[in-house]
Amino acid sequence: MTQEIPYKIYLHENEMPKYWYNIRADMKKKPAPLLNPATHRPMTFEELQPVFCDELIRQELDNTTPYIEIPDEIYNFYKMYRPSPLVRAYCLEKLLDTPAKIYYKFEGSNTSGSHKLNSAIAQGYYAKQQGLTGVTTETGAGQWGTALSMACGYLGLKCHVFMVKGSYELKPFRKEVMRTYGAEVTPSPSDTTEAGRKILSEHPNTSGSLGCAISEAVETAENTEGYRYVLGSVLNQVMLHQSIIGLECKTAMDKYDITPDIIIGCAGGGSNLGGLIAPFMGEQLRGEAEYEFLAVEPASCPSFTRGRYAYDFCDTGKVCPLAKMYTLGCDFIPSGNHSGGLRYHGMNPVLSQFYDEGLLKATSIEQTRVFKAAVTFARIEGILPAPESSHAICAAIDEAVRCKETGEEKTILFGLTGTGYFDLKAYEQFNNGTMTDSIPTDEELEQSFAKLPKVEA
Amino acid sequence: MTQEIPYKIYLHENEMPKYWYNIRADMKKKPAPLLNPATHRPMTFEELQPVFCDELIRQELDNTTPYIEIPDEIYNFYKMYRPSPLVRAYCLEKLLDTPAKIYYKFEGSNTSGSHKLNSAIAQGYYAKQQGLTGVTTETGAGQWGTALSMACGYLGLKCHVFMVKGSYELKPFRKEVMRTYGAEVTPSPSDTTEAGRKILSEHPNTSGSLGCAISEAVETAENTEGYRYVLGSVLNQVMLHQSIIGLECKTAMDKYDITPDIIIGCAGGGSNLGGLIAPFMGEQLRGEAEYEFLAVEPASCPSFTRGRYAYDFCDTGKVCPLAKMYTLGCDFIPSGNHSGGLRYHGMNPVLSQFYDEGLLKATSIEQTRVFKAAVTFARIEGILPAPESSHAICAAIDEAVRCKETGEEKTILFGLTGTGYFDLKAYEQFNNGTMTDSIPTDEELEQSFAKLPKVEA
Repeated sequence: MTQEIPYKIYLHENEMPKYWYNIRADMKKKPAPLLNPATHRPMTFEELQPVFCDELIRQELDNTTPYIEIPDEIYNFYKMYRPSPLVRAYCLEKLLDTPAKIYYKFEGSNTSGSHKLNSAIAQGYYAKQQGLTGVTTETGAGQWGTALSMACGYLGLKCHVFMVKGSYELKPFRKEVMRTYGAEVTPSPSDTTEAGRKILSEHPNTSGSLGCAISEAVETAENTEGYRYVLGSVLNQVMLHQSIIGLECKTAMDKYDITPDIIIGCAGGGSNLGGLIAPFMGEQLRGEAEYEFLAVEPASCPSFTRGRYAYDFCDTGKVCPLAKMYTLGCDFIPSGNHSGGLRYHGMNPVLSQFYDEGLLKATSIEQTRVFKAAVTFARIEGILPAPESSHAICAAIDEAVRCKETGEEKTILFGLTGTGYFDLKAYEQFNNGTMTDSIPTDEELEQSFAKLPKVEA
Repeated sequence: MTQEIPYKIYLHENEMPKYWYNIRADMKKKPAPLLNPATHRPMTFEELQPVFCDELIRQELDNTTPYIEIPDEIYNFYKMYRPSPLVRAYCLEKLLDTPAKIYYKFEGSNTSGSHKLNSAIAQGYYAKQQGLTGVTTETGAGQWGTALSMACGYLGLKCHVFMVKGSYELKPFRKEVMRTYGAEVTPSPSDTTEAGRKILSEHPNTSGSLGCAISEAVETAENTEGYRYVLGSVLNQVMLHQSIIGLECKTAMDKYDITPDIIIGCAGGGSNLGGLIAPFMGEQLRGEAEYEFLAVEPASCPSFTRGRYAYDFCDTGKVCPLAKMYTLGCDFIPSGNHSGGLRYHGMNPVLSQFYDEGLLKATSIEQTRVFKAAVTFARIEGILPAPESSHAICAAIDEAVRCKETGEEKTILFGLTGTGYFDLKAYEQFNNGTMTDSIPTDEELEQSFAKLPKVEA
C-alpha cells in the first residue's frame, strides 16, 4: 500500500532522535587516531585539554559507544528549528522529466542558514557546562561562525570568530549577523596572534585561508583564561552531532516506506556528508543494507579526488594535531576565484577511511556548472541554495538525467545544507557571466604533497 | 484534556486551506470603492483593465463571495513552502518571565523571506492564465520584488521591478536575488518613464519613494504590450490572498484548542495584518467570537495613528485610482533615516474601515526600540527578524511584560512576517549605536493633508 508522499515531510518534534549516532562504534577497523605533531604518538585526553572542552574530547576519542544521548538543553534548542524537512523535489523531477525520485534534506531553515547549528549548539553547551566563559573559532564562508554566534548568543557565552579576510571583506553582512548575536569578529590573518603575524609578514597581501584562521583561533583560545577552541567540521565529534541529519532522514523515509538508492552530499571538511550518511552507512557496515554514497567537492579544492591519504596538519600554522585524511597539503589554498565554502585542504578521517575502502565514491565539479544547477534549482524549487549545497544539487541533477537516459527509477537523496542569502556576490558574478573556473595543476599539488609531514605508518 | 503544545505546529499539507477567505463578504457596511481620479466615480471593471489582470479585478471588486477556491497550480506552489509554522515562543516567554503565552506565525521560511510570496504567486498565475507575457511592479525594502521575481521565475513570466533608489543602492544583494530569478530591476525614479523624469527634474537627488515607484511601474505596464501591473499590498485582492496566513493559524490553533486574546501585526500597506486577522475578524463580524486586534506601525510613518481617513491617491505620481483610507498624504515620504519597509503613506481600505469603526486598534513605535526588540528576539528565538516584523515583536513583548505586571495569562498571537537577512545595514547601524529615530512634526503632516484631493463624501 503506497501512501502519497507530501512535498515536505515534517516529523513531529517527538519523533526527533534523542540520541546522536556514533558510526565509529560500527567500524570494524577503527579510524586512525589524531597524532601529536611533536611525538607522532596518539593525542591523549590530557594533551587535548588546553584546546578542547573535556566532554568534546571524550566524544572525539570515543570509538565504541554507538548512541550518545542528546542533553535536554540541546534537545530543546533543536526544537526551535528541527526536525528539518525532508522535501520531495516534485517540481525539479517534472522539469528534468526524469523517472528518478528526488528527495533532499533541507538544513537551511534557520538564521545561521545551514546545518552547522547542529554542532554549534552542542559544542557551546558543553563549554558552558564546563564553566567556561567563551570559545574561539574560525569561519570561511561564514556559516559556521554564524551558527556558533547564534548558539553562544542563546547560551550567554562569549564568542570570538576569526573570519578569513577575503570572506570578511566580501561578506560584510555575514559579519554583521555574527555581531548581532554578540560575537567579536576579527579578519584573519590578524596581528593579534603570533600565527597571524607570521603569515602576514610572509604574505602581507594574503586574503587568508581556513587553515590560517584555525591557527589564530587555537592560539587565542590557549592564551585566554576560560576559553577553548571549537571547530565546525573535520572532527569526529562534529560528525557525531551532525548524525541528527541522517537519523531524521531515516525516520522520515521509513515512515513513508522510501529507500534511497544513492545518497549525495557536498564535502568540504565532511560535517554534512558524514552526518547525512551516518545511519545509512551504519546499516551497510552491519550488513543490513546497501547504498551508493557520493561525495561532491569543488574542482578547485579536490581533497578526495586528487588528494593523498596521509597524516597532515589540520591547520596552516601547524599548531594542531595531525589527522590521517585525504589532503591536498595543509598549505594548499584554493584559487582566489573560488566562491563559497568547501575550501578546506583535508577531510574528516572517518570519511577518508570510507573513501579509501571504496565504501564512498567522490566526484568534483567546476563552479560555473555548480551555479548553473543552483539557479535552475532556485527557480523551480523556490530555495536559493548555498554554493556549497549546490555541488550536491548538481550531482543529483546529473544522476536524475542519467536515469532519464537509462529509464532507471532510482531514488536519489541529497543534502541541501543551506541557503545562499549571503553568497550573492558569487551569484552576481554568475549572473553577469564573469564567473570563471580554476583547477589546480598536477605540479601545484605535487609541490604541496612534498611538504606533507613524514609520519611512519 | 490539554495536550502538550510543541515548539512548532506544522499542519500537514492536506490541512492547508483550499479557499481564500474574502472578509468583505462578512462586512455589513461594505468598504468604500476605488474612485476614478478624474470623475470621482467608482472605478469600473473596464477602467481597471488596462492596468490589472481581469481575474484580479474581479477579486478586487468582489464584496460578496466569502470563499474563493485556490487554483491547483497555486496550491501546489504553496506546498513548496507552506503550511508555515505556528511557533510557541517558549524561550521568549521564559526570558520575559511572563504568564502570557506567546505564539507567532512565521512566514519567513522561503527565499523571498516574507509572506509576500502568497500573493505574488497568485497574481503571477492569473497574469499567465490571461496569456500575458509579463508584469511590472514596485518594491521598497525589496521583499515584494523578490517574491514576485520568484513567482515569475517559476511561472516563466517576465518581471520588471522598479526598486526605490535608496533601497536599490543600500541593498545590492536584494537586487541580485531578483536578477537570479530572472527579473529586470530598475532603480526608481528612473528616466525610463514620464513619471520618473518629472520627479527627477523636480528632485534630482531624491532617493525615491514607494509612491513614485508605483507610478513608474503602472506607466510601464500601460505602455508595454502584454504587460499588466501588480501590487504587493494595500489592495483588497492582496488581503484576500494573504488570508491563507490567518486561515492556517486558525486551523492550527483549533487543533490544539488555543484561543488568542490579542492578535498583533505590523502594518505598512496592511497585507500581512489583513491576512493574519481575516478569519478571526470574520468570526467577530459574525458575532461568533471577540478578539483584540492591534496594528503596529513605525513612528516615522504613522498612517493609522496620525493619518486622516480620506480619499487619496495610491501613488505619488497621481496616476492611480483614489482609495478611501488612513493616509499621510500621497506626497508623504518617511525620513531618510527610516530603516526597512512599512513606508507606505496609506493603508488598506478594509483595515482602514475597521480602524475607523474601532474594531482594530493601532500603535506606533520608534525604530531604535523596534531593533532592540529584534535583537532580543533573534538571540532567544533563533530567528533574525525583518525590521517590519520586529514592530509586531516589540508590541508583543510590551504586552507580555504588561501581563507579568498584572498577572494576566493572556494568549498573544503575532505575525512574524519575515527575516532580516537583507536588512543588515540597518542592524549594523543599531549594533554600532548610530541608529536614530525621527517622527514627523504636526506641521509637516498638516502640510501634507492640505494637498489631499477634495472628494465629496
